[in-house]
Formats: sequence, structure tokens, C-alpha cells
Amino acid sequence: MQEKQLLMIPGPTNVPNKVLHTLGAPAVGHRTPEFSQVIKEVTERLQAIYQTKHDLFILTSSGTGAMEAAVANFVNPGDKVIVMENGNFGERWVKLNMRYGADLEVISGVWGEQASPQALRERIEKDVQQEIKAVFVTHNETSTGVTNDIKALREALGDHPALFIVDAISGMAVSPLPVDEWQLDVVVSGSQKAFMIPPGLAFISVSPKAWAVSEQVTTPRFYFDLQAARKSYVKFTTPYTPSTSLILALRESLKMIEEEGLENIYRRHDFYKTLVRTAAKALGLELLTSEAAASSGVTAIKKPDNLDPQQITKIMREKHRVIIAGGQNKLKGQIFRIGHLGYIDVNDIIVTIAALERTLKELSWEFQLGQGVAAVQELLLKGEK
Amino acid sequence: MQEKQLLMIPGPTNVPNKVLHTLGAPAVGHRTPEFSQVIKEVTERLQAIYQTKHDLFILTSSGTGAMEAAVANFVNPGDKVIVMENGNFGERWVKLNMRYGADLEVISGVWGEQASPQALRERIEKDVQQEIKAVFVTHNETSTGVTNDIKALREALGDHPALFIVDAISGMAVSPLPVDEWQLDVVVSGSQKAFMIPPGLAFISVSPKAWAVSEQVTTPRFYFDLQAARKSYVKFTTPYTPSTSLILALRESLKMIEEEGLENIYRRHDFYKTLVRTAAKALGLELLTSEAAASSGVTAIKKPDNLDPQQITKIMREKHRVIIAGGQNKLKGQIFRIGHLGYIDVNDIIVTIAALERTLKELSWEFQLGQGVAAVQELLLKGEK
Repeated sequence: MQEKQLLMIPGPTNVPNKVLHTLGAPAVGHRTPEFSQVIKEVTERLQAIYQTKHDLFILTSSGTGAMEAAVANFVNPGDKVIVMENGNFGERWVKLNMRYGADLEVISGVWGEQASPQALRERIEKDVQQEIKAVFVTHNETSTGVTNDIKALREALGDHPALFIVDAISGMAVSPLPVDEWQLDVVVSGSQKAFMIPPGLAFISVSPKAWAVSEQVTTPRFYFDLQAARKSYVKFTTPYTPSTSLILALRESLKMIEEEGLENIYRRHDFYKTLVRTAAKALGLELLTSEAAASSGVTAIKKPDNLDPQQITKIMREKHRVIIAGGQNKLKGQIFRIGHLGYIDVNDIIVTIAALERTLKELSWEFQLGQGVAAVQELLLKGEK
Repeated sequence: MQEKQLLMIPGPTNVPNKVLHTLGAPAVGHRTPEFSQVIKEVTERLQAIYQTKHDLFILTSSGTGAMEAAVANFVNPGDKVIVMENGNFGERWVKLNMRYGADLEVISGVWGEQASPQALRERIEKDVQQEIKAVFVTHNETSTGVTNDIKALREALGDHPALFIVDAISGMAVSPLPVDEWQLDVVVSGSQKAFMIPPGLAFISVSPKAWAVSEQVTTPRFYFDLQAARKSYVKFTTPYTPSTSLILALRESLKMIEEEGLENIYRRHDFYKTLVRTAAKALGLELLTSEAAASSGVTAIKKPDNLDPQQITKIMREKHRVIIAGGQNKLKGQIFRIGHLGYIDVNDIIVTIAALERTLKELSWEFQLGQGVAAVQELLLKGEK
């Protein structure tokens, strides 16, 4: 049979049929009043999810493009910047800042633990000259299954004038991130995560404080120049051709997000986290992260004994048609990761745990068949009235 | 979240995304050489599934329309006909023949057991005048989860000249039914079962023997007149406007069927039957049918104790988004049915059994949570290398 595939990676995520249908619609002109109306509507819906009244732009790129925009528009060569690094995507902030010639200082954390607000606070307190221009942080560290405490990190910055710049690519619309309330200056996210559409769009918000900095930044930029985006957005157009079909698809998925409601979405993802962690423990597996640090969107599980995580992901994919992820970078070969964000439901989690059970049995891991699913079922019975 | 729904009823069945996509294609003209080419291709693919070299037509109707065609084209008022009735769809043959004024004789069987080839043989042997003009049978009796032994029933007719007419609506492409080899004169099926497209098309094959009879039949018929269809088919058109988009979707699903291969499809459905029956037994539930009589496409399960099957189907649908069926007609309130035909995989079966477990727990049926899924998993582990 033509195979069904279930995406349980931390993005790209499953796309609802309703949205796929939109992607099949005929091409539209991108410089029409009708399409400007779409950009306006989509931007307002994104602002509601970001919980910001400030500017927000749609970029036609994947998330890394928006991360580049967050560096190129706000960092001058030689500027002192701090990157809070505790995973592969923290490292991406490092690489981007190096490429753009920042005077980089990395506060490294343990992969699998949260970035330390205390470490940031101490560094900020030492910066009596206020030389630090920006602090880069990661909301949800996809590579380790850790959600950093953005609120505490921001509080550690206090009223220091440095910009606070957040990669929320895999965390936005999964866990709370009220951009204005927490005073986050620049926040980037991407279409292929909780926004439930294919990769190809990224979003970036810019606070008034960030705009003021950007006017002094001479770093060369063109496609990702946010001043250009700002000018075009006065008429709700984009400076360069946008991915029209993805934006139309996004309009549909944003309506679905609005219908469900942000609080419900946060709660649902948090519940998935609990289901997957409980199942893993029931199968005798060890989790990479503590409960307090754990992401609602992706769970990292340590490899059982001397099993190869690549074997696990391969059997899951080839035999059970469930796509999960291995480890990245220094965690490669150490963990595997189950994504549980976006358009998935508890039935998808059951399928995933059942497939994991058969995979582990095949690899001779010892446990009682059915224990993982039963643990999920017990939680579901408690959760369902 | 916008809800996903899993159809586990014995039709309409889940439609693959690839096919859904086709349904969104622009309208096409139905009297073009291009569309005639489509009709030709689809008809040939259907003949391969029917395993017939004889005529086969696509009707724009649901399955009952093709059943009506099978009566109106081959039965004169006053003709003696036999209906082998052991379920709700056997009764449909009864009603149709009554409506068309046949001299009807019903050989009733037990609902949940197979129709009796012996009973038919005895009746045929008594028909020394060869007054019987047609025998109507049901391949897969959707209402009870029984697959009748069509080969044995046909053998019971022997070389008696009566037409042998089969409702294979929910059985075609689920269990073997080689139309020419078994000498089946008229066989009807429908698009919304194992053909994996939405309802709206029906298929009917006609043997040379059936054509000879049809020429003598004066029963009024127009939309379902197969002589008209035969004339149009010379140029691969239909006498009346066909459902073009469904036929284009059918072309896609037939390609999928060809890719998978008929033998694999039969084996897959047979395995689903085993999985569902094993799970039901593991949960302490009683099956309506014996192993030998059991359908590969739908399993009927007796209501547990004094639970109401309607409660079961309601909770499954509303809380777990898995749509299963209740009983029909005289089995209403006595059973519930799980369909497992068409575009489903073992993950769908796991979801269904898991949802059934939570439903039964909620209704206080006593069993150990996880037993049904574990039983399925054990069989899967044996089946998967």
C-alpha cells in the first residue's frame, strides 16, 4: 500500500488536509490589493500569537534566514554580543555572529539543561560600561528538548540597553512567549513548526528599541533588510516576491490556531510532553532533560544501553512509517528525539509509542510489550472526562 | 485543534491524500478524446481487479444503483429468482426483486453465519424444469462481518442456466473474487469501499450469458440501462454525464492498487481481520462470526454484557475521533462493527484498539488496560521480520 507517514520530528510537522488543499490552489498575483489584504490579515494573526503590538514581518526563507536578519539588522561588526548557548541552535547564533564579525562572548550551558539566568545576570552586572549590544537566546532548543526560561533570562538583562533577541522557531505557539509583556526585542519563528505549514516562511518581530539600534547598523544586508520590509509593509506588500501559496496556506493554519486558542494549544503540547515522557519511563528509557527543563514540543530520550539511535530511527521509519529524529552535533549517537508539536493528536502519540515498543523489542531491549501504550492510556483516561 | 478523524467503518473509507489532491483538480470535459482515454484506462484496470475479460461499466451512482441495474437488466416481471439472504444487504436484493415484480424465493441464513451452499444445491436440484432465472448472492455481508463462500455457492448452481449475480460492493479488492474463473455473471461493486475514493461511482461486470438474457428482458430501465452503456462504451463514453472528478480520482487509486498488487491487498486485509479479532478476544469481547466465516473487511463484535453499542460508537467518535459502526436492522443494539478495508494501515488499527480500550474502561467493562494493543503488537512483531 502507498505508505502513510507520520512526522514525529520537531519540524517540519504534519500539514492538515485543509491547509494542503489551499496549497493546491491556483497561483495568485502578489502585487494585488487582494493579496495585500491577505498579508495584512496574516500579519495581524501572527501578532496575536506573538502577543505583540510591534512590527512583524513575513520573510520568504526558512527560520535560519530570519536568524540572519536578526543579526544583520541589529549587530555592527565589532559589537560586543552575548550568546547563551546550550544546544545546536544556540551554536547557530554563535556561527551567525562570527560570520558578521561581532565581538562574540559565549555563555555555554550543558546540553540538556536550561541556559542559566544567573550566569547572564552576573555577566551583565560586570558590564558597567554597557558595552554589550545584544543578547541572543534560544526559546526552545530543538536539539536537546529543552525550553529555556526566557522570562528569567530577560529579567537577568534588567534595564541594560542591550537588545534581547530570541530564536523561537520551534517554541512559538507551543509554549507561552508573550513578546511585549516580556520585553523581547527581536523574535524569530518559522512556518514548518507549530504553524503547521511546510518550510519556506519565517517571521520576525521588531521592537521600537530594536528599530532605533537598527538605524545605526551598517552591516551589509539586502534580501533580509528589515528597513526595506518596513517600507513595503506600509502598503502590506513585501520588498521581494513572497511565497504566495505558503502565505495563503498560513492564513488557513492561523485560523485553525485562532479557533483552538493559544491557551489550549499550550496546554495540549504540555500534555503531549507528559504522555511521551511517561511512556519512555514506562519502557525503562532515560530522559535527557529534567521535568522542569523539558520542552513541550520535542522530547529527547537517551539511547538504551548500547543500542544505536540510528537503528531506532531507521526501523521506526522503514517498518512503522513513523519519522522520529536522532541526535545532533555532540549528542549525535547519544539520543533520539520525538517531536510532538503542531498538527498531531493523542492517537499519533499512541502510534508512535506502539511503534517504538516494536522497534525496541526487535532490538532486544527488555521490557513488557504494551507497557508504554498502557502508561499513555492511563494518563488519557485521567485526562478525558 | 481541528480534529483529525479516522474512518473505521466498512465504507466510506479513508481517501489517500494523493487521491484527494486529484479531486481538487479543475473540471474537465466528459466528451473529449482525453477523457475517453481515461475511461478506457480505468475500465481496464477495473477488469484486472475483477479478473474478467468481459464487459464492465462505470455507473455514476452509489452501489445500490448498480444493484438495481443488476435486477432491472436481467429480471423480467414474474421471473423466478432466488436470493441467498443472511444479512442486511441480502435483504436489499430481496427488496429490489420485490420492487421489480420477480417471483421471489428467499433462502434465509443466520445473520453472522455464511449462506449455505448446501441449501442452494438442494433447491437447484429440485428445479427440474429450470424455472429459476437468477440467483442473487452477497460476497461480503457488511452488516454481519461475514464473507460468503462465493465459489461454493456458484458450484452449487452447477450448469443450471440461471444467472449468478453477486453484490461484491464491500468485498471486491478485499478478498479474492476471480469473476471469470468462478463464472460469475453479474458482479457489482462501489467506489467508497476498497477502491479508496468517495461514494458516487459503482461498477458492474456482465458476462456473455448475462447479455443474452438481458436482450429478452423488457423491464423498464433508463439511467441504469446496460445496453445503452454498452453502445456508448464502444467509444469509451458513458450514455449520461459521468462524475468526471471521481473517475479521475479512481484512476489514481487504481494505480495504487496495481502498485500494491491484488495478492498483497488480500493478504493485508486478512491480516487486519486477525489483528482486530485477536484484540477483541484479548479484551474479553465476543465475536459475532466464526473464524472461517469472518470478513477481511469488517469485524462484528457482540456488545459486552449490557452495554449499549451506541454508547461505544458515540464515545469512540466524540472523544477519540475514531468512527466505527453499530449494528443494522435485526442486529441493531446487539453488535458494533470495526471496518478495516481500503486505505488503512496497522497504525490505524492500533489507534482503534487503543480508543476502544479507553471507551470500554469509561463504560466500566473489566479488563486490563493495554491488553488489546499488546495482543496486536505481539502479532505485529511476529509478522514483521
